[in-house]
Amino acid sequence: MSDPRVVRFRPEAGQYAWTFGGVPPVTRIQPGTILELWTEDCFAGRVRGKDDLVSQVCEFPFLNPQTGPFHVEGAEPGDTIAVHFVSIEPSRDWAASTTVPLFGALTSTHLTATLQDPLPEVVWIWELDRSAQLCRFSARDSEATADLPMNPMHGTVGVAPANLEVRSALVPDAFGGNMDTPEMRVGVTCYLGVNVPGGLLSIGDGHARQGEGETCGVAVECAMETVLAVELLKGAATPWPRLESDTHIMSTGSVRPLEDAFRIAQADLVQWVTKLTGMSALDSYQFLSQAVEAPLANVVDTNYTSVAKVRKDWLPGRTEVMRGVHDHLCDVARSYR
Amino acid sequence: MSDPRVVRFRPEAGQYAWTFGGVPPVTRIQPGTILELWTEDCFAGRVRGKDDLVSQVCEFPFLNPQTGPFHVEGAEPGDTIAVHFVSIEPSRDWAASTTVPLFGALTSTHLTATLQDPLPEVVWIWELDRSAQLCRFSARDSEATADLPMNPMHGTVGVAPANLEVRSALVPDAFGGNMDTPEMRVGVTCYLGVNVPGGLLSIGDGHARQGEGETCGVAVECAMETVLAVELLKGAATPWPRLESDTHIMSTGSVRPLEDAFRIAQADLVQWVTKLTGMSALDSYQFLSQAVEAPLANVVDTNYTSVAKVRKDWLPGRTEVMRGVHDHLCDVARSYR
Amino acid sequence: MSDPRVVRFRPEAGQYAWTFGGVPPVTRIQPGTILELWTEDCFAGRVRGKDDLVSQVCEFPFLNPQTGPFHVEGAEPGDTIAVHFVSIEPSRDWAASTTVPLFGALTSTHLTATLQDPLPEVVWIWELDRSAQLCRFSARDSEATADLPMNPMHGTVGVAPANLEVRSALVPDAFGGNMDTPEMRVGVTCYLGVNVPGGLLSIGDGHARQGEGETCGVAVECAMETVLAVELLKGAATPWPRLESDTHIMSTGSVRPLEDAFRIAQADLVQWVTKLTGMSALDSYQFLSQAVEAPLANVVDTNYTSVAKVRKDWLPGRTEVMRGVHDHLCDVARSYR
Amino acid sequence: MSDPRVVRFRPEAGQYAWTFGGVPPVTRIQPGTILELWTEDCFAGRVRGKDDLVSQVCEFPFLNPQTGPFHVEGAEPGDTIAVHFVSIEPSRDWAASTTVPLFGALTSTHLTATLQDPLPEVVWIWELDRSAQLCRFSARDSEATADLPMNPMHGTVGVAPANLEVRSALVPDAFGGNMDTPEMRVGVTCYLGVNVPGGLLSIGDGHARQGEGETCGVAVECAMETVLAVELLKGAATPWPRLESDTHIMSTGSVRPLEDAFRIAQADLVQWVTKLTGMSALDSYQFLSQAVEAPLANVVDTNYTSVAKVRKDWLPGRTEVMRGVHDHLCDVARSYR
Repeated sequence: MSDPRVVRFRPEAGQYAWTFGGVPPVTRIQPGTILELWTEDCFAGRVRGKDDLVSQVCEFPFLNPQTGPFHVEGAEPGDTIAVHFVSIEPSRDWAASTTVPLFGALTSTHLTATLQDPLPEVVWIWELDRSAQLCRFSARDSEATADLPMNPMHGTVGVAPANLEVRSALVPDAFGGNMDTPEMRVGVTCYLGVNVPGGLLSIGDGHARQGEGETCGVAVECAMETVLAVELLKGAATPWPRLESDTHIMSTGSVRPLEDAFRIAQADLVQWVTKLTGMSALDSYQFLSQAVEAPLANVVDTNYTSVAKVRKDWLPGRTEVMRGVHDHLCDVARSYR
Repeated sequence: MSDPRVVRFRPEAGQYAWTFGGVPPVTRIQPGTILELWTEDCFAGRVRGKDDLVSQVCEFPFLNPQTGPFHVEGAEPGDTIAVHFVSIEPSRDWAASTTVPLFGALTSTHLTATLQDPLPEVVWIWELDRSAQLCRFSARDSEATADLPMNPMHGTVGVAPANLEVRSALVPDAFGGNMDTPEMRVGVTCYLGVNVPGGLLSIGDGHARQGEGETCGVAVECAMETVLAVELLKGAATPWPRLESDTHIMSTGSVRPLEDAFRIAQADLVQWVTKLTGMSALDSYQFLSQAVEAPLANVVDTNYTSVAKVRKDWLPGRTEVMRGVHDHLCDVARSYR
Repeated sequence: MSDPRVVRFRPEAGQYAWTFGGVPPVTRIQPGTILELWTEDCFAGRVRGKDDLVSQVCEFPFLNPQTGPFHVEGAEPGDTIAVHFVSIEPSRDWAASTTVPLFGALTSTHLTATLQDPLPEVVWIWELDRSAQLCRFSARDSEATADLPMNPMHGTVGVAPANLEVRSALVPDAFGGNMDTPEMRVGVTCYLGVNVPGGLLSIGDGHARQGEGETCGVAVECAMETVLAVELLKGAATPWPRLESDTHIMSTGSVRPLEDAFRIAQADLVQWVTKLTGMSALDSYQFLSQAVEAPLANVVDTNYTSVAKVRKDWLPGRTEVMRGVHDHLCDVARSYR
Repeated sequence: MSDPRVVRFRPEAGQYAWTFGGVPPVTRIQPGTILELWTEDCFAGRVRGKDDLVSQVCEFPFLNPQTGPFHVEGAEPGDTIAVHFVSIEPSRDWAASTTVPLFGALTSTHLTATLQDPLPEVVWIWELDRSAQLCRFSARDSEATADLPMNPMHGTVGVAPANLEVRSALVPDAFGGNMDTPEMRVGVTCYLGVNVPGGLLSIGDGHARQGEGETCGVAVECAMETVLAVELLKGAATPWPRLESDTHIMSTGSVRPLEDAFRIAQADLVQWVTKLTGMSALDSYQFLSQAVEAPLANVVDTNYTSVAKVRKDWLPGRTEVMRGVHDHLCDVARSYR
């Protein structure tokens, strides 16, 4: 294994992508490249204190800035880009969260429309203790505080969509995007089906941590220093984003209503396990019905995202997953560090 | 603490309850009683081999037999019954699962109606190795096998519903019932709001294990030897079933579509945490958005069930949960063993 | 045709049914009977002026009182009861409507749970001009008024449910119940599948008029003088409530989410048209996709109700509908008047 | 009133738009222009006989070709484009419909994913008798035929989306697009909020007729000769597409699940009526709950579309709708003919 090429990219203020698709690449990379990236937070860095209300300081649609896109040389429709998260580190010692009027799971929204008043718009600034790997919550209406473990992740990773579309960086769908799953963490490889030449990979929306479902619509949002190892699997189609960790394989589905997101993720995992094990689809369906974990990702975005995951060592007679690229990228990550 | 009274009950063939509500109690118990119960599997024991198709051997609506109901002395509307799972042990060395025509998450159903043919009806018999605590899966269309950890639980636990209703034992709702959550395991206390005098607690639907969502609609179904410790909390209303383990508190919601089940569970947990911590509802909303886990229970039953759970030791300045009854029942369980 | 027997029944205050199922019949009737009934409004008559707030004057679960149930002699599971609406006339010169806290389509609810405040609770008293057949709306916050055509209907008509269940009179489901469709008007025959011996028919929830969807959750609610002609079709199963007018046949579906209610009604109408015309199911699917009307009934109740309707004279080569019972009951109605 | 300028445009084969947004205008028009257009059918004209299966003859994503877009001079975000349908006439004496694998309301789909086989792919060719204004259905599996009234309409009309997005012509959303409502017929004015300079109006997807809900996913699809009168309302924002006929005003909502599409349309109509009548929002909510019609448009596309409509002459004390532009465009249409 030769040394991977390392590409470092930190976007200037005017250099963010606000969509998946519709944006020229910031650079072209070879498969096998390591990307050292910096990503701004979902507020484009404009929420810096508790008086910075999103409705006042942010400018729609300039939310959820993406770093990229990167054109992966040789990527064509029908291929899969593998993105391995080598490291994800908050680049500031604070992070922000907030309620946003008519956005979130426990409020009516522009889509679940009611005649009620919106909830109050409130900002929380979280302290990040990077050495202790803790996120400190401070209540706004009392003196209460709480320390939660840091669990850095990226809410958004995706490629250009199919069907000639360009989608807001706030959208999760078959191209990836704003899936907001805490599973997108260090040590995980994300597989994204390529829809356009070069794939056009981009990433953003770092979270110091996030609950499952992202209930209020906003995580512990922070800028990130992130290192990725990128590979290309030629001739391997991936219909919906898949993930692989050292222990699990995972499928995702992003759509409304939430039961359809569940169905997509579960059906995709059935198909994947059928292929990996050589079992029939019905046998895989039975096996997974008893073996699967189903952590929710988000129940707030344009589409809701559900994850279906199963332990790799539970799979009967399993063959190599995705040509072994996850193990390979773990090796690359170890060499890099 | 005086010794709890122990009541042993094993239903005869004609003694099952098929509904929540509408059934006279099999016996009356004092708060503080330990119940030693036997529960039949969801097929009423009629699926015993791979040729026993549900559509042929089972007789609707005589599915999901419940052991009970038990009248808890003194229980009145506005109170809460606490049910602690002391032990749950498969009473046979096998369990059954199956596809059921037009039932399950990855098929059209009588409610998600399509013009397609149903999936084939197939039965899987799982071997249960109770000493090794393993469930052995054997594929039907190949020689594949897999051993999964045993994780015994009850799919169904509930009380009589409110509003003069009687519901099939296949239904999960605010009264509990067929929630099918793997969280309903040994060491957990389940809190159920009382709707009628005596509450009328019953339990059934043992699973040797189950994936999150119960995707094919049927778990690893088996008869169980189960021990419960039952307490009564006077003057404590519980709007939706809640659970408590040594580490977590959990709320549930059961309705369609699935996002509404998510909303109910999350909103209930916000209200609960607000009360436990003294924080404002908005502060609890923010805190939980970053701290919550959201494992799905079932996405197949009459209502879908979502669980919201949070670590107790993460809660800021928390006061005693439900008057400390979980810790008390854990003590009772230890004394009993 | 011999003269039908006429049975007159006006319930006393303590004589209402609050559920479908679980209630003994008020009387037994022969198939062919004409029922002259009086039904109280959904508030049990307790909202009589604009200061009568539901949350204060009504007593849960004593809402939506039903007149009945009537045991239809000879009705057994697998049969169908046909209920023809001979006349529906408001029995008062006013009707009431209201917002109910956390109920309705344009508010969060106990099921679509949010942390927002409920909408204000406001009562509107409508004047009913029975000679001009008009309902007069008077705004509460201004002097605005509007006259809308009277279109009397019953929100609730049903039989005892299957599966040993007892359901609140507020629920619509396969047994009928609180479907809240404006199609349930004079001249229409409603077909209900029988689940228990005698069927146990009851009716209530008169509306002087109602919009499609019953958006705020409450129609122009009034007590009614209603005449029904009841028949029994032996050996004719009806899976979901169906309706027939002089011009249309209609299927209904009641479930959440709303697309599933749509699917049930459409799939049932495909099956019905397939049987009536002798076409294949796919040909019926194509034909109906171009011919169907799909008026919503309610998007507010425990289950949402969707109607699928098609003109009878558009059906190719159609045979007699439901053994011609609608035409027969129209004759009965004409003789009665 | 001076004579409106007439612009005639018939796209060449390579000149269709396949998306809303992302396409340069085919021409620029002045407000007040009459457009004489030809639109190809949704199959891009490739389904011409019963052996032309979509899965074989069509090339994704080149479906639902749009005629346009037209840059309306002076249109800016915050304005509204008014499109009046002067005439819609089938340009062929036949039309096509079909089942499409895993598309439609009564089949599982790529989003409502199941493990079942798709329904068979079948094409129906409908005869269009333009003089008698009839569409003739011929069953595929029998000799059955039926004549249905012609009711020409456009399934798709829209402008470029907001938020930098480009959407497939198969999508309905706030920008309009593939709403598939039979209300989009001759004599109706459609109001579309402008999101980008010039608005970029396009139109396609002619249907000789369509049922409500477009159940099988495909209407009676045909090429159309269509005449539009286009106006611009400066400084009038329209959040979701609205329609106006001589008798009704209508709001639309397009999203999943269907109850949210219902909520959007109903809430928008409440806001509109509140503004038109000067009543409070709660009074409008009550009034519309009793007065509204709620015909479904589609329950098959990427988003489902619901329509809320109310008679204009029922509105209390109503002021002019949208500055009277509908009446003006009706005059223009009369002058043109």
